[in-house]
Amino acid sequence: MALADIGLIGLAVMGENLVMNMESKGFTVAVYNRTAEKVDAFLAGRASGKRILGAHSVHELCALLKKPRKVMLMVRAGRAVDELIEALLTELEPGDIIIDGGNSHFPDTERRCAYVEQKGLLYVGSGVSGGEEGALKGPSLMPGGSPAAWAQIAPIFQSICAHTEGAPCCDWVGQGGAGHFVKMVHNGIEYGDMQLICEAYQFMRDGLGLSPDEIAEYLDEWNRNELDSYLIGITRDILRVKDADGAPLVDRILDTAGQKGTGKWTAIAALDEGTPLTLIGEAVFSRCLSALKEERVRAAEPLNCALPPIEGDRAALISDVRDALYASKIVSYAQGYALMRSAAQTYGWNLNYGGIALMWRGGCIIRSVFLGKIKEAFDQDDSLENLMLSPYFSQELRRCQSGWRNTCARAMLAGLPVPAFASALGYFDGYRCKRLPANLLQAQRDYFGAHTYERTDAPRGQFFHTDWTGLGGATVSGTYNA
Amino acid sequence: MALADIGLIGLAVMGENLVMNMESKGFTVAVYNRTAEKVDAFLAGRASGKRILGAHSVHELCALLKKPRKVMLMVRAGRAVDELIEALLTELEPGDIIIDGGNSHFPDTERRCAYVEQKGLLYVGSGVSGGEEGALKGPSLMPGGSPAAWAQIAPIFQSICAHTEGAPCCDWVGQGGAGHFVKMVHNGIEYGDMQLICEAYQFMRDGLGLSPDEIAEYLDEWNRNELDSYLIGITRDILRVKDADGAPLVDRILDTAGQKGTGKWTAIAALDEGTPLTLIGEAVFSRCLSALKEERVRAAEPLNCALPPIEGDRAALISDVRDALYASKIVSYAQGYALMRSAAQTYGWNLNYGGIALMWRGGCIIRSVFLGKIKEAFDQDDSLENLMLSPYFSQELRRCQSGWRNTCARAMLAGLPVPAFASALGYFDGYRCKRLPANLLQAQRDYFGAHTYERTDAPRGQFFHTDWTGLGGATVSGTYNA
Repeated sequence: MALADIGLIGLAVMGENLVMNMESKGFTVAVYNRTAEKVDAFLAGRASGKRILGAHSVHELCALLKKPRKVMLMVRAGRAVDELIEALLTELEPGDIIIDGGNSHFPDTERRCAYVEQKGLLYVGSGVSGGEEGALKGPSLMPGGSPAAWAQIAPIFQSICAHTEGAPCCDWVGQGGAGHFVKMVHNGIEYGDMQLICEAYQFMRDGLGLSPDEIAEYLDEWNRNELDSYLIGITRDILRVKDADGAPLVDRILDTAGQKGTGKWTAIAALDEGTPLTLIGEAVFSRCLSALKEERVRAAEPLNCALPPIEGDRAALISDVRDALYASKIVSYAQGYALMRSAAQTYGWNLNYGGIALMWRGGCIIRSVFLGKIKEAFDQDDSLENLMLSPYFSQELRRCQSGWRNTCARAMLAGLPVPAFASALGYFDGYRCKRLPANLLQAQRDYFGAHTYERTDAPRGQFFHTDWTGLGGATVSGTYNA
Repeated sequence: MALADIGLIGLAVMGENLVMNMESKGFTVAVYNRTAEKVDAFLAGRASGKRILGAHSVHELCALLKKPRKVMLMVRAGRAVDELIEALLTELEPGDIIIDGGNSHFPDTERRCAYVEQKGLLYVGSGVSGGEEGALKGPSLMPGGSPAAWAQIAPIFQSICAHTEGAPCCDWVGQGGAGHFVKMVHNGIEYGDMQLICEAYQFMRDGLGLSPDEIAEYLDEWNRNELDSYLIGITRDILRVKDADGAPLVDRILDTAGQKGTGKWTAIAALDEGTPLTLIGEAVFSRCLSALKEERVRAAEPLNCALPPIEGDRAALISDVRDALYASKIVSYAQGYALMRSAAQTYGWNLNYGGIALMWRGGCIIRSVFLGKIKEAFDQDDSLENLMLSPYFSQELRRCQSGWRNTCARAMLAGLPVPAFASALGYFDGYRCKRLPANLLQAQRDYFGAHTYERTDAPRGQFFHTDWTGLGGATVSGTYNA
């Protein structure tokens, strides 16, 4: 019997589909699942007649693999990963590779990579995006970890992944937890993209009184230009789906959004890095707010504002909304990329930013034409300080800013929430502001906490303290936190 | 020799000032510092002739204390606290009390409290706010931890703290890490208050072209009404301070704000709780953005927008700015209180919300008349779901909303960043919105991840899945995270 090219542990839908995908590309795959019946059922069912071998233990699985062995985990993030790593370490030998394809938090991957390397083996934490369909037909793959593992797994990963214009949506991300970090940022950006579409939808629904079918028409048009993307496309399709009685189904869906926490991780990582990620933060908090359905219904009456409706040329207003969505999207990706730049410095990763755009270009939820433009921007200048500064995107922002500003102003005067549009605009205007009001803030901190300040007419790094009241002293604080 | 009422470890400025404060209220205090010379210098200097006893070891310190012994730590948050707890556990006996008055992160306090209680002793983590001056003359104190400790420390804490209209700005907060949690939220709110003042300042400075002295005039007026507060008062004073050549000093200060991390902790706690805290989040990120001074200067030209100046009746515009500041402040405190409510449920704390307002009413950086109104709101209804729903604040929000909306719209059309004003307005409009666009978002999640949705015409808790494309199946996802 031929040995397998790779082993996979965890036969939930994602795992099964990845196995089918690998097999369809000519690889022999050995599989193991904690519940043995799942292995037998898979072999008797979808895997029947395929180059797929079953194992009833980790020991059996490892015996079925070509060397250097490659074992991919597709199990729930958390303790199960650590337990399987321990079990595998007793079976594998130096040079073998453990791959975690689950949604692990990047600090866990960072820790596990160091641990497994210290045992002489190689470790990969890989983001896998695209859901169940992507796993089967071609996901976006974001592998990172032990650099020596890449040459071993690249033939498999780059043939099972999605491809865009011939290029694989999978490349080596970087060391340690870099792959899972980039996957986390991807998910945060997905939260932002979805929130942006929702704000445009609410503006058109509640501000302009458009029906789902009418909104779908506009999205269909948007989907032919800069905003051409998977999420705009499925939103158009969703808006056209009818309930059993012919009414739009979307109108029957309760306005309470769930979440699974990766957007939150992204926002926390940004706070830890000290890198503004305001739009994704608003997107995460908007989901939290949506969940307070009963409380919101109770608040509507006491906080009723009786505001005038939005008036004006409808086509112009809708064109402005599109510009707001597009410009905000540029800001969101700029913030996400700035976060990756910052984390790369913190963790010592050598990230390929254009390559990341290419990985996201196909196979995953945020796939879009837009990511091709980001790839081009980094191809032109891979040390780009901020995406907004690329010639293409700075021009697009200037082009869209008028409609973006109008949409935010109109929404705020009409009482429609546009937290992501507005936070993006606040970041844009703050980022391009030579002189923010932080001089006053630093004066306040020096006043009450003797935190000192720098001066516009002195070199950076020289700190001054003023006795603001005439009562204090020259003591500089090292204790009071504010 | 008389035994001391309390011992204090850590003679940095905050610790020394607290000792002087306690002594001035008639208490005998024993002191210890790791560097023994510091103890001797203190006793020979400020402490000379006072009821202050010196110790050169933890052992000596504990021998100087009345039983049950009370030892307060005023040392750097982190490992030093754990080390001193270990040292004290070998000297103290059941019923004795260890108090941490530093800026510890609340999960550490939660852990230490359980650990010390398990040894039979009592533990208190207390927020101490008001800086060095507050420590000496009357700080805001927020103690939490082992409930049995409160009766023992209350006489000292409630006599050294600030007082407002005769009431002490110190009360028992709750179990475990509750005291440090509330102090953390206080600091987050402080970040928000400072950012709000900065946005008003920038609007008047860059949007209306007012001089520091002119802005000070308006702040002086604001400080006589609803916005009467320590921070508005010191800002007015700061704006009037002149440099050596007579020019306003604030104009010479570099616009890069520092931070020490407690605002960040607050935002992370909100993300962990799933409670929107958008304004403080924007305030934290605004400080991060201000720190990118050189990058902002480089971005100003390529992202230049050439926008028309703000025009209109200046008095009306400034009145609108005040309304924006006031309404946003209400939102910020509403978000902070909602976070405390959520954490109280998570950690099993029984928080007294009116009492917290009273603790912040005096002694600390955010002290204000406003906090008296919050106290009243909770006195009227201590189960208030959200501060914005109290009769007083809902009326104030309705009264101010027009000016608030105008200010945000004007700023956005003129290219002035108002991230905190705008995020507050987005929360207000979202919170009072019966039907958010999250129905669409949930449809998207069901489309690509089979995450299911609830319906408006079915009971809560009943979940539906649609085969949106006509190609998928009835499988509901449990694996894909989005």
